[in-house]
Amino acid sequence: MTDASDLADRVQAGDLRLYELEDHADADTAAAARRELLERETGAETEALGSFSFDADGVDSNIENLAGGTQLPLGVAGPLAVNGDAADDEFHLPMATTEGALVASVNRGCSAITAAGGANARVTKTGMTRAPVFRVADVTEGAEVAEWAKDNHDALKAAAEETTSHGELTDVTPYVVGDSVYLRFRYETKDAMGMNMATIATEAATEVVEAETPAELVAVSGNLCTDKKPAAINAIEGRGRTVTADVTIPRDIVEERFDTTPEAIEEANTRKNLVGSAKAGSLGFNAHAANVVAAVFLATGQDAAQVVEGSNAITTAEAREDGLYASVNLASLEVGTVGGGTKLPTQREALDVLGVRGGGDPAGSNADALAEIIAAGALAGEINLLAALASRNLSSAHAELGR
Amino acid sequence: MTDASDLADRVQAGDLRLYELEDHADADTAAAARRELLERETGAETEALGSFSFDADGVDSNIENLAGGTQLPLGVAGPLAVNGDAADDEFHLPMATTEGALVASVNRGCSAITAAGGANARVTKTGMTRAPVFRVADVTEGAEVAEWAKDNHDALKAAAEETTSHGELTDVTPYVVGDSVYLRFRYETKDAMGMNMATIATEAATEVVEAETPAELVAVSGNLCTDKKPAAINAIEGRGRTVTADVTIPRDIVEERFDTTPEAIEEANTRKNLVGSAKAGSLGFNAHAANVVAAVFLATGQDAAQVVEGSNAITTAEAREDGLYASVNLASLEVGTVGGGTKLPTQREALDVLGVRGGGDPAGSNADALAEIIAAGALAGEINLLAALASRNLSSAHAELGR
Amino acid sequence: MTDASDLADRVQAGDLRLYELEDHADADTAAAARRELLERETGAETEALGSFSFDADGVDSNIENLAGGTQLPLGVAGPLAVNGDAADDEFHLPMATTEGALVASVNRGCSAITAAGGANARVTKTGMTRAPVFRVADVTEGAEVAEWAKDNHDALKAAAEETTSHGELTDVTPYVVGDSVYLRFRYETKDAMGMNMATIATEAATEVVEAETPAELVAVSGNLCTDKKPAAINAIEGRGRTVTADVTIPRDIVEERFDTTPEAIEEANTRKNLVGSAKAGSLGFNAHAANVVAAVFLATGQDAAQVVEGSNAITTAEAREDGLYASVNLASLEVGTVGGGTKLPTQREALDVLGVRGGGDPAGSNADALAEIIAAGALAGEINLLAALASRNLSSAHAELGR
Amino acid sequence: MTDASDLADRVQAGDLRLYELEDHADADTAAAARRELLERETGAETEALGSFSFDADGVDSNIENLAGGTQLPLGVAGPLAVNGDAADDEFHLPMATTEGALVASVNRGCSAITAAGGANARVTKTGMTRAPVFRVADVTEGAEVAEWAKDNHDALKAAAEETTSHGELTDVTPYVVGDSVYLRFRYETKDAMGMNMATIATEAATEVVEAETPAELVAVSGNLCTDKKPAAINAIEGRGRTVTADVTIPRDIVEERFDTTPEAIEEANTRKNLVGSAKAGSLGFNAHAANVVAAVFLATGQDAAQVVEGSNAITTAEAREDGLYASVNLASLEVGTVGGGTKLPTQREALDVLGVRGGGDPAGSNADALAEIIAAGALAGEINLLAALASRNLSSAHAELGR
Repeated sequence: MTDASDLADRVQAGDLRLYELEDHADADTAAAARRELLERETGAETEALGSFSFDADGVDSNIENLAGGTQLPLGVAGPLAVNGDAADDEFHLPMATTEGALVASVNRGCSAITAAGGANARVTKTGMTRAPVFRVADVTEGAEVAEWAKDNHDALKAAAEETTSHGELTDVTPYVVGDSVYLRFRYETKDAMGMNMATIATEAATEVVEAETPAELVAVSGNLCTDKKPAAINAIEGRGRTVTADVTIPRDIVEERFDTTPEAIEEANTRKNLVGSAKAGSLGFNAHAANVVAAVFLATGQDAAQVVEGSNAITTAEAREDGLYASVNLASLEVGTVGGGTKLPTQREALDVLGVRGGGDPAGSNADALAEIIAAGALAGEINLLAALASRNLSSAHAELGR
Repeated sequence: MTDASDLADRVQAGDLRLYELEDHADADTAAAARRELLERETGAETEALGSFSFDADGVDSNIENLAGGTQLPLGVAGPLAVNGDAADDEFHLPMATTEGALVASVNRGCSAITAAGGANARVTKTGMTRAPVFRVADVTEGAEVAEWAKDNHDALKAAAEETTSHGELTDVTPYVVGDSVYLRFRYETKDAMGMNMATIATEAATEVVEAETPAELVAVSGNLCTDKKPAAINAIEGRGRTVTADVTIPRDIVEERFDTTPEAIEEANTRKNLVGSAKAGSLGFNAHAANVVAAVFLATGQDAAQVVEGSNAITTAEAREDGLYASVNLASLEVGTVGGGTKLPTQREALDVLGVRGGGDPAGSNADALAEIIAAGALAGEINLLAALASRNLSSAHAELGR
Repeated sequence: MTDASDLADRVQAGDLRLYELEDHADADTAAAARRELLERETGAETEALGSFSFDADGVDSNIENLAGGTQLPLGVAGPLAVNGDAADDEFHLPMATTEGALVASVNRGCSAITAAGGANARVTKTGMTRAPVFRVADVTEGAEVAEWAKDNHDALKAAAEETTSHGELTDVTPYVVGDSVYLRFRYETKDAMGMNMATIATEAATEVVEAETPAELVAVSGNLCTDKKPAAINAIEGRGRTVTADVTIPRDIVEERFDTTPEAIEEANTRKNLVGSAKAGSLGFNAHAANVVAAVFLATGQDAAQVVEGSNAITTAEAREDGLYASVNLASLEVGTVGGGTKLPTQREALDVLGVRGGGDPAGSNADALAEIIAAGALAGEINLLAALASRNLSSAHAELGR
Repeated sequence: MTDASDLADRVQAGDLRLYELEDHADADTAAAARRELLERETGAETEALGSFSFDADGVDSNIENLAGGTQLPLGVAGPLAVNGDAADDEFHLPMATTEGALVASVNRGCSAITAAGGANARVTKTGMTRAPVFRVADVTEGAEVAEWAKDNHDALKAAAEETTSHGELTDVTPYVVGDSVYLRFRYETKDAMGMNMATIATEAATEVVEAETPAELVAVSGNLCTDKKPAAINAIEGRGRTVTADVTIPRDIVEERFDTTPEAIEEANTRKNLVGSAKAGSLGFNAHAANVVAAVFLATGQDAAQVVEGSNAITTAEAREDGLYASVNLASLEVGTVGGGTKLPTQREALDVLGVRGGGDPAGSNADALAEIIAAGALAGEINLLAALASRNLSSAHAELGR
């Protein structure tokens, strides 16, 4: 084995490529070599990047060209009482973020929700999707392929499920646009977020389509999936988990903790989250659900780019005689408790803090629970921000917290 | 000063709240107490969460209820040649992610772009927005307030700019919907992402509106901003930086490196990114721009929830006689090189790797450069994924990389 | 019976309301009275409005407060060869419009399509939808109601179908948002456009929901239908008929008739209909499909307000070695050949011109044929306008035609 | 001059084309010949189509291939009191429709509004848009062209305004997407709807762009206009007139006339028009504004395909102690009182009924007034339908009216 400095020399000399270092050294040395290279070429220090505590060898399925680690502070909000179907307990919500005031805001919301007896939460739809696009001769052939797909669900299911021990193909919906045919495959992926499972299974199914019909595959993803782009199809039909949380907070709790009224909160929600978002041409009718989604996603090893779909959320608020009714509906929350980033040390611990690490019993229940907890956390964030707006202290709160 | 175990006892006994620990101990001890509490209540280990290397005291403007740190592996892609206005050099792109194959994918795209002479990149619009919503008596009064806002730009500008040494108010656009009036304030915020600057400045301006007109503030954000929600107003009018990158890759490079043709890539782009996204009701006409945005955002201390707006991207691809023309337009990329998460150790180093840490000269040029680099990186990711789809190896690539 | 002048006196005297005139006179006299009233009160002449030729008595299910008739010029484009499933012939397309150049434009497109052997056309999905919204106690109850709806499809179907001799309930999809539950009912309505049939059947089904679950009906339409509003749910999932038409026009025909090339048309389509619409946050990725939809809708007695959904169209164009491939996909074309405005004299004749008046054999085939013909007509309009843009003569064409 | 039968023979013989008849006969004879041809080829009768009363010669700028006339019944709703800026009076609303129950519904709403003292209405933004798309070499050149357009507003304005005696260019906004540059031109077009004026003026301006910059015109419309397609850019930024109407209806009027309460109406509006539309991915947050827009458009000679943009409407409803506050905001209502279909006899009379025919004094005031009246009419329709839903009688109302 060579040392890092030597490897860096060879890259600079053009003998090695940046991605070939693991062929010549262990993972830690390769990462050190990359840091040395960065230092030489940019003058940057990389000491902090080098002081990660995960095992460099252990992340080879999560990253390539490893150079170090990024560290984010993690705070906890809670306890947060959740009356869910899969999550029925009090939780401390781990949140990794650099946005000052966020954890405090959610924490205040958790406190009110818990004092009110907890948030209800339910997953009402599940399914990870992948939608390949095929080329056909013309619309006549396209219509035939679409019919074929409806008539041959079993063959597609058999091919798809051969690639996976856990996934189940539940639906294939065809869309014909000119000489393109899109087939949107939907899978139950249990405790896995399931994007890769769905991709691999769909790739197998596309071989059946190509063998049995004149359709030719253009791309295994035709963007009707839709992954990591804002899209109405996810906001409407869901992707991952569709989950809703709600709570009724007694009037006295609203008034004491938030220094405002249910009526003022309802008004802020209607004018901002409903009418304002309507005018903005938005798919997100909420205050800042993405903040909570992002912070918990980072803490628990979810895919950060899927915060995009996680922001497809609708918040409602209604002042009632007995207090404030509030809800948040997350249409397409893509979460998993196995695979991907969930295997990393800090992320594993965060999942353990929530009691949802690994495969659930029954299968899927851990990911369901994580979805319900995030929905309840998002609700906490919504209630607190709406209340803060209603009492006009948003920016002063930020100011005090020093940003 | 008390020790962590003692603090944890007091929280469990109900004597202290989770957020009060810093009043009784230093930041490290408070964080340790929270970890101990989590261990006691959930049985989870927190050793990894506790082995962060940033200064606990130093993140108090980034987080509350600090319990530890989340660590993400960081890889580098590059070198990536960028022919930008603010960024004109070769760069190594730091990416923090847990999604296997992503860095390798971008790296391959960078290699092709650089071999082709680099990506052009331009910021064509800038401005951070905040849009408060006001209550008026009726539409007649609403129309008057809207007129007033147009006629009194100077007064609003003076009030807003009094709160900031760097920000400049450049525009105020009114929208009347029934008895709600929204004023969308737009600011030049230089090297800061600027959300807080814009909020504080707008809060000051709203006081003028309330003093001079009958309008009453309902919320300092009325969601026409739009922050952290997918919204057409951002995709159309921009928020933060609107930035576009493009490149023409010679035909032989396309064929050798990607084992496909410009024509096949154009076809994949049209059927997937244009027609497929159209059918999905999407605001994101791209393959996976959010992946690159998210990974660089995390590495460089940007706000992870703003990956949402970062996904408002349009990718084009055209096969030409001499090769492949490809571009990516990021409508609303919200980046800063000062403030927020950019102050953390690993994030600072990543910004240094790119040479864009802190305030630029001229002011704003560092954030412009970061935007141009991210756009070029997103272009690399788009080209590689489209090429991979075109040569049908998406899922097999994932399979080989072990997910 | 009283005469018109007398009735007008009594309305002016406050003895009668405008809508009560038919209680005191025949339909013609009542209409004449209203015209007289309008003349007296506004000074306007109403002679043209009074010279309609339909039977005033015969439109009482189409209008109230009848005062006269509006006349629109009707032109014909064609012959247009359509190779559809339900429409397989050459057609003359009746178009009622006041937009100069429109019929000429479509006519030119028809000519090219017919010369190329005709347009393929296929209906790939059908179904009229109605989505009532219910109030529930909370999300827990909402999830139960959603489950109940899935488990009790037969009961809903029985109740719904009792109200109609032709309609069939094919699907009920539940959506839970906070304490609102939306059930989207989908019906096969055969040759009827079916909005009223769907409303009446759904109203009956809602009674079952209310009787068997704790859900309470708030509105028989909860806007997830979605009727007469631009909505992604229609653009994605369809409403009425989802229909696609396409054609390949030989290169020499393109060049001779349009004075441009397939390549130039493809470029115009990509930059305008795909990328331009993407940037506009649009659900309509076409040039002017709504023009053809509107003109044929008016001529054939369709609901003019449903032009809104008819504009959810995607146009594709691809230059190939042998010519231009072009297609148009209309996601939600709501047409009927029985009921509504199809009973009026001029509208009946226009349907006869197309050979699609009344109930088809098999049921639904006339409305399918009308959808296929409109799609082919829209394709004609798209091809001609794209070609005109490609040869830069859009505004000069308008100028010559005198507007 | 030949007679109709003879002309029909010659078309069937292939000696003449359908559009050449006016070269050989007067307009009436040509139309008669086309009807005869339709009768021969399809067996349809065309008597009703032939009994139009407008002058066949007079519609040559509105239609080509004239064959006859389509007749729609016209009803009147009102009186409707409008407290607008341009329209301040009581009006009878002419509505051409074949949808039973619509006029009655609007009439009931008018009655309540008028009893409540009338609807406020204001036009808050005006401007017809046209957005050509240009090809540039790359994003660097694109950014330069965008800058050029900002710096050369005067030259563009001069060129554009040379083509028109009434229009004024007020804004040019550039958008760069890859190697496409879109320039969105906005015009004040006074009493004209202005689409053709804007097209012709923009065509002239594009010549300046092409002469002074390297940009090459691809299409005079690049779909960022956006004409006749649902598009967020219109819903946000407006097109034609942005107009809002509102009213407060005293509680007793709500209860007596509608047999429901302000609270029930607010609930129906929130769950249906706000939350339901949000979930549907809609740009139309209203109940049926398009119905009123379509019916008045048809009666007054507007462009029926622009009902699409007219449906971009947001309805709000709020129960207050003193009654119901309701508003409707039409973001992009494209109306004119000169040109296009406004010249036809029945349409002229309908405009006279409203007192808004021809050019206003000051210029633009007639079109403003028409916009305000339509907004008030749409408000009437919204209030009545929401009230009907709230009292659960939507489908029974339809049933009684016989459809």
